[in-house]
Amino acid sequence: MAKTSEVAIRPMEMLRKSLEKNIMVEVRSKRVYSGILEGYDVYMNLVIRNASETINDENRGIHQRILVRGDNIIYVSPSGGDEN
Amino acid sequence: MAKTSEVAIRPMEMLRKSLEKNIMVEVRSKRVYSGILEGYDVYMNLVIRNASETINDENRGIHQRILVRGDNIIYVSPSGGDEN
Amino acid sequence: MAKTSEVAIRPMEMLRKSLEKNIMVEVRSKRVYSGILEGYDVYMNLVIRNASETINDENRGIHQRILVRGDNIIYVSPSGGDEN
Amino acid sequence: MAKTSEVAIRPMEMLRKSLEKNIMVEVRSKRVYSGILEGYDVYMNLVIRNASETINDENRGIHQRILVRGDNIIYVSPSGGDEN
Amino acid sequence: MAKTSEVAIRPMEMLRKSLEKNIMVEVRSKRVYSGILEGYDVYMNLVIRNASETINDENRGIHQRILVRGDNIIYVSPSGGDEN
Amino acid sequence: MAKTSEVAIRPMEMLRKSLEKNIMVEVRSKRVYSGILEGYDVYMNLVIRNASETINDENRGIHQRILVRGDNIIYVSPSGGDEN
Amino acid sequence: MAKTSEVAIRPMEMLRKSLEKNIMVEVRSKRVYSGILEGYDVYMNLVIRNASETINDENRGIHQRILVRGDNIIYVSPSGGDEN
Repeated sequence: MAKTSEVAIRPMEMLRKSLEKNIMVEVRSKRVYSGILEGYDVYMNLVIRNASETINDENRGIHQRILVRGDNIIYVSPSGGDEN
Repeated sequence: MAKTSEVAIRPMEMLRKSLEKNIMVEVRSKRVYSGILEGYDVYMNLVIRNASETINDENRGIHQRILVRGDNIIYVSPSGGDEN
Repeated sequence: MAKTSEVAIRPMEMLRKSLEKNIMVEVRSKRVYSGILEGYDVYMNLVIRNASETINDENRGIHQRILVRGDNIIYVSPSGGDEN
Repeated sequence: MAKTSEVAIRPMEMLRKSLEKNIMVEVRSKRVYSGILEGYDVYMNLVIRNASETINDENRGIHQRILVRGDNIIYVSPSGGDEN
Repeated sequence: MAKTSEVAIRPMEMLRKSLEKNIMVEVRSKRVYSGILEGYDVYMNLVIRNASETINDENRGIHQRILVRGDNIIYVSPSGGDEN
Repeated sequence: MAKTSEVAIRPMEMLRKSLEKNIMVEVRSKRVYSGILEGYDVYMNLVIRNASETINDENRGIHQRILVRGDNIIYVSPSGGDEN
Repeated sequence: MAKTSEVAIRPMEMLRKSLEKNIMVEVRSKRVYSGILEGYDVYMNLVIRNASETINDENRGIHQRILVRGDNIIYVSPSGGDEN
């Protein structure tokens, strides 16, 4: 088995690797934001560019740029391929 | 690809760049505040000038100045163009 | 554009400027307290004098003095004019 | 206008001034405790003596002494006059 | 009036004085635990011996020993007399 | 009366004494986990072995090993006798 | 009885041992994520590879990689055998 210290990808590292790539973020109350990750901080607050907003699977338009508060995030998923 | 250290825009940096510009803030319970960002702190507490308040898509009037507590914020979106 | 360092009004500064003036505070569960701000701390706990209480837009009387816990606050709005 | 440093009454100071006096505390879930404040700490945990308990405006009896956890408090109101 | 420094009973002090005595603890979701306080910590986590559990005023049996998490506590009330 | 310093059992101490013994943990949303306590940390996160899961009093099977997050715990009860 | 210091498996240790193995994570709102644990941090934020998502027992597809925020986690269960 691979050594732990080599394979582990810490959450903040995953965010760093996702910079300038497409991500999908789901927050409480069935909201989903999809766009390009521009930045983040240790609280998991995210800055997303060209963020499309979906509430209850219904499209609510695009935010040119949005700061999503980390507190309400359920998950962050990089979309698209090999982000390593 | 651009170097990470150059392109990343941290959340607090986005707020700093939005000072004296229009922002839209959504907080829990379907409230939206739109106005000019006058100030903020590390807890994402925001001071907004000429803030129009919307609850459940219904206009509730204008606050000359308002301090929105960061705890309840879902997202902050700068409105209007090139804030870089 | 004005320099950021000059125009930014941090949240705690707005509270300081509102001391001995009328404010309106909305907290969760549709409660509103209006009165004169007598004091505050970094947790946004507020001491309000002559505070009228409204729940669901229904008047519930006056508290000579009240300590409103910051945790539940949605926003604080100075009421009335030029508090600078 | 009065000088800020003289008039501001910080929340903890209001509690200190209320020691051995009657207070009314409302906590979440429509609970109200009224009695004599015996002690407090920085988390706003309160020790109240001869505390009558009301839930949904219905009297639930007296606690000889009770420790109310600060987390759930909405407000604390001194009852009765000039506590300065 | 008595001097504050002499009469104030801080919340942790009340717990200390209640050690090995009967207490009643109400936590969220209408749960009540009554028994002998065996220990506590600064988070208000409590260890209770011979703890009877009541949910919605319905008896649910006895726990020989139980650790109740402080987070959910609404109040702690010593039951019975002069715990000074 | 026994001396406080001798009889007090702090919450973390109760967990330490319960290591390798049966415990029952109730968390929010009417979930109960019963099994052998293998480990814990200061956040009250628990590692339980052979943990049976019950939701709304309905059996949901066994987890060979499970890490229950401390945040959601209502209480931890050692099951079975004299763990002193 | 075995010595405590030898048998205790702390929560973070369980996560470390689960790296590159299958885990099942349940978060609030009846969501379950199953896949290979790639990383974690002290907040219990988890990076999971090939994560299948289930909401209310209904399959919602696969995330190639997902960062699940620790705040909402109810439990983490390693699936499959002897992870020691």
